[in-house]
Amino acid sequence: MSQTYPRLHRICVIGSGNWGTTIAKVIAENTRENPTLFHPDVQMWVYEEQVTIPTTSRHYRPGTPPQKLTSLINNLHENVKYLPGIILPENVIANPDLISAAREASILIFNLPHQFLGSVYRTLRGKTLPYARGISCIKGVSVSEQGCELISEAIGKELGIYCGALSGANIASEIAEEKWSETTVAYAEPQGGEGLPKEYPPLSRENVKRLFHRPYFHVRVIADVAGASLGGALKNVVALAAGFVDGLGWGSNAVAAMIRVGLLEEVKFGKYFFEKEVKTETFTEESCGVADLITSCINGRNFRCARLAVQRGVELKEVERTELNGQSLQGLTTAVEVARFLRSVKKEKEFPLFMAVDKILAGKAEAKDLPALLEGDVNTLSGRGNSSL
Amino acid sequence: MSQTYPRLHRICVIGSGNWGTTIAKVIAENTRENPTLFHPDVQMWVYEEQVTIPTTSRHYRPGTPPQKLTSLINNLHENVKYLPGIILPENVIANPDLISAAREASILIFNLPHQFLGSVYRTLRGKTLPYARGISCIKGVSVSEQGCELISEAIGKELGIYCGALSGANIASEIAEEKWSETTVAYAEPQGGEGLPKEYPPLSRENVKRLFHRPYFHVRVIADVAGASLGGALKNVVALAAGFVDGLGWGSNAVAAMIRVGLLEEVKFGKYFFEKEVKTETFTEESCGVADLITSCINGRNFRCARLAVQRGVELKEVERTELNGQSLQGLTTAVEVARFLRSVKKEKEFPLFMAVDKILAGKAEAKDLPALLEGDVNTLSGRGNSSL
Repeated sequence: MSQTYPRLHRICVIGSGNWGTTIAKVIAENTRENPTLFHPDVQMWVYEEQVTIPTTSRHYRPGTPPQKLTSLINNLHENVKYLPGIILPENVIANPDLISAAREASILIFNLPHQFLGSVYRTLRGKTLPYARGISCIKGVSVSEQGCELISEAIGKELGIYCGALSGANIASEIAEEKWSETTVAYAEPQGGEGLPKEYPPLSRENVKRLFHRPYFHVRVIADVAGASLGGALKNVVALAAGFVDGLGWGSNAVAAMIRVGLLEEVKFGKYFFEKEVKTETFTEESCGVADLITSCINGRNFRCARLAVQRGVELKEVERTELNGQSLQGLTTAVEVARFLRSVKKEKEFPLFMAVDKILAGKAEAKDLPALLEGDVNTLSGRGNSSL
Repeated sequence: MSQTYPRLHRICVIGSGNWGTTIAKVIAENTRENPTLFHPDVQMWVYEEQVTIPTTSRHYRPGTPPQKLTSLINNLHENVKYLPGIILPENVIANPDLISAAREASILIFNLPHQFLGSVYRTLRGKTLPYARGISCIKGVSVSEQGCELISEAIGKELGIYCGALSGANIASEIAEEKWSETTVAYAEPQGGEGLPKEYPPLSRENVKRLFHRPYFHVRVIADVAGASLGGALKNVVALAAGFVDGLGWGSNAVAAMIRVGLLEEVKFGKYFFEKEVKTETFTEESCGVADLITSCINGRNFRCARLAVQRGVELKEVERTELNGQSLQGLTTAVEVARFLRSVKKEKEFPLFMAVDKILAGKAEAKDLPALLEGDVNTLSGRGNSSL
C-alpha cells in the first residue's frame, strides 16, 4: 500500500493571513501523518512586519516590545497577529523570503488577497521548480467583455505551472478552531507539459486529498477547476438577490427560491463560458457549489448588506460605505461585471436573476420587482422540465 | 392561440384547512383568468362543522352565534376558521358533500391531512369521472421493508385515476398573503388507460401550469412525480441532521454540508427505489427538491426541534413531547422507516447520513459523531468525483 519514493513533496503556503495560516495548519497536520508522501516541514511565506502581541494571544505579556512576525510564529507557534489563540504545529515554518520559501516546493498553495498576486508573480517568475503544481485558495474570477478569467488560470499562466483551486463553504476561523466543515479541491494532474518527475509520489486524487482532508475538514477532490472557481464568485450575486427578498420580509421560501434560480444560472453561465470543462455536478453536488451558495445566502456578508439596504430603503453602495469599514462588497463588482458581459453577448434573457440584480443595483428596478423580473425565466416553461440544462 | 373546446375542466379541491383553502384561492384566481380552459367555479369540499367567528376575522362581531363553516365561507368569502383574514374569490364554492363536490370534476386536488384519506377513498370510490386526474398536495411517503409508497400512487390506486403531485418550499399562510414563493407540480398526462375525452382542453404542461401559476406563486411543471414526492419526505431526515450540527454551534457551513450530503443521499435513495422514473434534476434543480430542503434545514420544524434537543442535551422525543402540543415530528418517523428499510436491503454504507440520524435518534451515537459517521461516505473518494450519481 504505502510505496516509498526517493523524493517527497515539499509544500509552500504563500500567504499568512487568517485563511493562509489556517490552511498551513491543516497541511502541516497532514504532512506529519503522511511521511511517505510529504516532507513534514511546511514553508509559509509571511510578509514581514513588526508586531506587538495582542491581548487575545495566550502569549500576551504587558510591555513586551514589537517583534518580527516570522520570529513570533516560529518561536510561539502562533500567528499572533492574524490567527491569535490557535496553536500551530511546529512544522509550520514562517519564512519572510518568498523565493527561499518556494524554491524547493513541488506544491505551491496560493492563499493571500488577490491584489498582492502581481508582486508574487514578479518575485517568483522563473524561480519555482519547473514541474511545481499550484492550488489557489483565492476566490473570485474577473469578468470583462472579453471573457472570464479564473485566478487559478492567471497564476498558472504567469508562473508557467499547472494550478488547481480550493473552494468551499468555509470560514477560516471555524476551520482553525476545528469546527467541522467541508471543502472542494479542484485538481486534475495535467496531461502533457512538464511532467512530475517519477521520483515523486504521483499527485493522484487520493494523494491530493491526503494533503487537505482532516477529521474536521472533509475534502472531495474533483477535476473541474473552472466550475469550482465560478461557484465561489457567482454566489455573491445570488446572495444579493437573497438579501433583497429577505429584506422585504418574504421569508425563507423566497430566499430558497433565489438560491434555486441562482444555482441554475450559475450552471448555465459556466457552461456558456467553459463548455467542455464545467460540470453541472460541480454546482449541484459539491461544497464549492451548492453548499457555499447556501451559506452565503443565509449568513454571508453580501446577503446581510443587501438585506440591510432594503430594510433601510437605501442604496447598497450606501450600506457598503457605512457598514464595511472601507472594505468592498465583492458581489457588487461581480454583479456589474457579469451583467455587462451578458449584455455584450446578448444573453440577458437567459439570466433573469443576474440581470435583475444589476437592474436593482442601478436603481432601474426595486427588490419587490424580482418575481416579475424572474417571470422571464426561459427555463420556466420552454418544454425543458427535467431535461438537463 | 386560444382554441375553444366544447367542455371545460371543472376543479374540486378536497380539503379546506389552511393549505387546502390557500390552493383553492390560487386555483379560483386562475380559473377566472383562463375561461377557455376551466369552468370558473372551484368546488371545495369542507368537513362541515359549527364555527364561531374568531376575533382574527374581519367579520367578527361580539355575540354572533356559531354557524356552519360552509355557509360562512360562501357568504363571507373567508374561511374564518382555518384561514382567517384572507379574502377568497367568490368562485370558491364550499360544499359539505364530498360526492357532489367531486362528481363533475375532471381535476381533483387532494389537500387534507393524510389520515383522512381512507375515508375519502371509501366515499369517492367509483363516484368520480372515470377519466378524472388527481394532483396530491399532501407531502410524505410511507417506507416499509417491502418498499416505498407515494401518497399520489396510493390515491391513484384507490380511486383508479392518474394522480400527480404538488410539492415545494411553501408555507400556506405566506402564499395566502401573496408573499412570493415557488413550487413544483409533477404531472405527466398518462399514456394509455382511460383517455381524457377530446372535448376537453388537453392537460399539457402549459395548461397544468395555468391552473396553479400566479405572479406570487411561480410554478414549474415536471414529469417526475416520484422524485417530487420523495424530496418532500426525505428532507425531514436531513433537517434533523442540520439541526443537530446547528445545536452544537458549528455554524452555517456545517449546516450547508449536511444539506449537500443529504441532497446526494436523496437522489441516491430515489434512484434506488424508482430507477427509471426519478431524475437527479428533480432534487438538484426544482423547488420540491433543493429549495424545499434548504428551507427545512434553516427554519423548519424538524430542524428547530433537533437543534433544541442538542442544546438541551435531551432526546428528540422529549422535545417533541414538550414543544409540539401533541403534534408529531414527521422526520422522526421517516428517519426510522428509512433506516429500517436500508438495513433490510443491506445498503447502510451508501447512506451514511440517513443511517447516522437513525443512530443518533436511537441513542447509539451523538450529534458530535456526525463527521466521523460521514467519513464512511462512499462518494467521498471512490474515484467518482464529478461523475454522475
